[in-house]
Amino acid sequence: MDFPPLAVSLGDPAGVGPELIAAAWARREVEELPPFFVAGGADILRDAGRARGYDLPVIEIFHPAEALELFGHSLPVLAGADGEYSPGLPNREGAELAFASLTEATELVLAGDAAALVTAPIAKARLAEVGFDYPGQTEFVAAACGYAPGDAVMMLAGPQLRTVPLTVHVALKDVPGLINATLIERKARIVASALFRDFGIEMPRLAVAALNPHAGEDGRMGREDSDIVTPTIAALAAEGIAISGPHPADGLFTAHARESYDVALCMYHDQALIPLKALDFDSGVNVTLGLPVVRTSPDHGTAFGIAGQNLANPGAMIAAIRMAGECAARRLGLFDD
Amino acid sequence: MDFPPLAVSLGDPAGVGPELIAAAWARREVEELPPFFVAGGADILRDAGRARGYDLPVIEIFHPAEALELFGHSLPVLAGADGEYSPGLPNREGAELAFASLTEATELVLAGDAAALVTAPIAKARLAEVGFDYPGQTEFVAAACGYAPGDAVMMLAGPQLRTVPLTVHVALKDVPGLINATLIERKARIVASALFRDFGIEMPRLAVAALNPHAGEDGRMGREDSDIVTPTIAALAAEGIAISGPHPADGLFTAHARESYDVALCMYHDQALIPLKALDFDSGVNVTLGLPVVRTSPDHGTAFGIAGQNLANPGAMIAAIRMAGECAARRLGLFDD
Repeated sequence: MDFPPLAVSLGDPAGVGPELIAAAWARREVEELPPFFVAGGADILRDAGRARGYDLPVIEIFHPAEALELFGHSLPVLAGADGEYSPGLPNREGAELAFASLTEATELVLAGDAAALVTAPIAKARLAEVGFDYPGQTEFVAAACGYAPGDAVMMLAGPQLRTVPLTVHVALKDVPGLINATLIERKARIVASALFRDFGIEMPRLAVAALNPHAGEDGRMGREDSDIVTPTIAALAAEGIAISGPHPADGLFTAHARESYDVALCMYHDQALIPLKALDFDSGVNVTLGLPVVRTSPDHGTAFGIAGQNLANPGAMIAAIRMAGECAARRLGLFDD
Repeated sequence: MDFPPLAVSLGDPAGVGPELIAAAWARREVEELPPFFVAGGADILRDAGRARGYDLPVIEIFHPAEALELFGHSLPVLAGADGEYSPGLPNREGAELAFASLTEATELVLAGDAAALVTAPIAKARLAEVGFDYPGQTEFVAAACGYAPGDAVMMLAGPQLRTVPLTVHVALKDVPGLINATLIERKARIVASALFRDFGIEMPRLAVAALNPHAGEDGRMGREDSDIVTPTIAALAAEGIAISGPHPADGLFTAHARESYDVALCMYHDQALIPLKALDFDSGVNVTLGLPVVRTSPDHGTAFGIAGQNLANPGAMIAAIRMAGECAARRLGLFDD
């Protein structure tokens, strides 16, 4: 059975996406990356590669399957949308191009022409101006799959830690009101089954971080952990999921504690992202769990401030491409753990 | 000028405090620790040392000054309160002993007979049963100095990071309502002057973590950062304090970001303690800023579950003793940076 190439979306052309794709391709052999192609932006990628010091052999293709043969000596790019490369200066045309590239890459994965989707960073506020009506790329991909946003789970994965934020882009004051049994159960089930299916972990161990300091100390510092989180964990454990908590969050990310679980479910954005970025900043991957397609992304933004200056570290992009390939191969039964 | 010894309080005798004091004394030469004595508990320390595999030469003293001569070959312990050592089994007598030791050690520092105070861990709920009416040891020491609790600032310090939680033991839902200009200004001024006085940092750089994810994104995810934190930082900067922020908290603790500041002011307990413990678990020190006395403590609890089993890591206790000695020496003008 043939393993199709991965589809990589360009991201905002004024951000670091194009140069990181170029840098990843340049390191394809030493990093043992699976074949991929980029959805559009041939000229942009050539220029971005030049800014990194590469004379990038970009080759235009008309069907993803062509990428398999070409990838070893050229960076395959789907012919089509293209534009100017103005690092650090995002504009409307760039946002339109990023949106078009994401749409095309997603469609090719859904059609089975690409094995998985890797998305380069976009600027959400800019894409919103050109009709992108989603909180982020995760929700866009979920909708393209016909899934509700709540059925796509964002996991951040680095070499030392995996975390899942149960709530994401909301004010801190709104977090306690959003934590309920339905939310925790829905996400925990998706995480448990995805860690088995996509990551090959036979019986994944989930650790739940407490909302309140010291897990609320029996209600003296907040009742959510004892009233909501504890019984929900008991119910999930009764289903056969290996889940523990609520653990006081400050102790959950020590080197010793990290050995006791495969993923930490966190109550809010910063609780999940502070430890991930403190430990694994240059290689964190944002992976979407629970969808019929595999999708990963480097866990950083467009970084307009350093785009085009050969400063951005391609570690997370490389890790995202490798992880997408591994997850897709596991789904196809082709990955030998 | 003579530099007095440090006073170390025993902590709960059923916790890991006594054995960590014994372990620190045993490593006094290789760790180059300043002379210290323990306030009470000679028999407890002998037993605790034995559980760690040392035949500890405990020597009873009647005045702190005796410790200077004896410290090289014996662990000096103030004659007086003592009791049984039952690792892992806290009781009322142990709590009374911990309270008495803390009180005596604090008084000796206030009297100038000891250079600084190092407190071993207590169990707050147990001490409350014997009349200890403070949220923690920090507030007890502040009161002993005649200071308001808000004038003592808890800083967590490890080799890679220093953080100050602006709010501490409160439910997460109550945090947003507690953040105001007065709180931030009061704590920031204390931190800035203490990092100069006690840590020898000429112009300390303070970085303030945002309350909301992405620092609220111009109010789209919470208004506290733009409405309260930003103008307060501007006012403090106008006073001449080197302060920046509010910074999105998830990016503030990466290796790269940590180079840009000397201390991070955090909005709540877990925001300050998650990165500290993830990075520096075995050597985190809790240091009290803003008081007329120097006080440090290992940044961990009584760990009743592993007490007496030779499992507890003395790294944080050793770091707390060393830091107390250095801060006290700086105040006396005796430390050569």
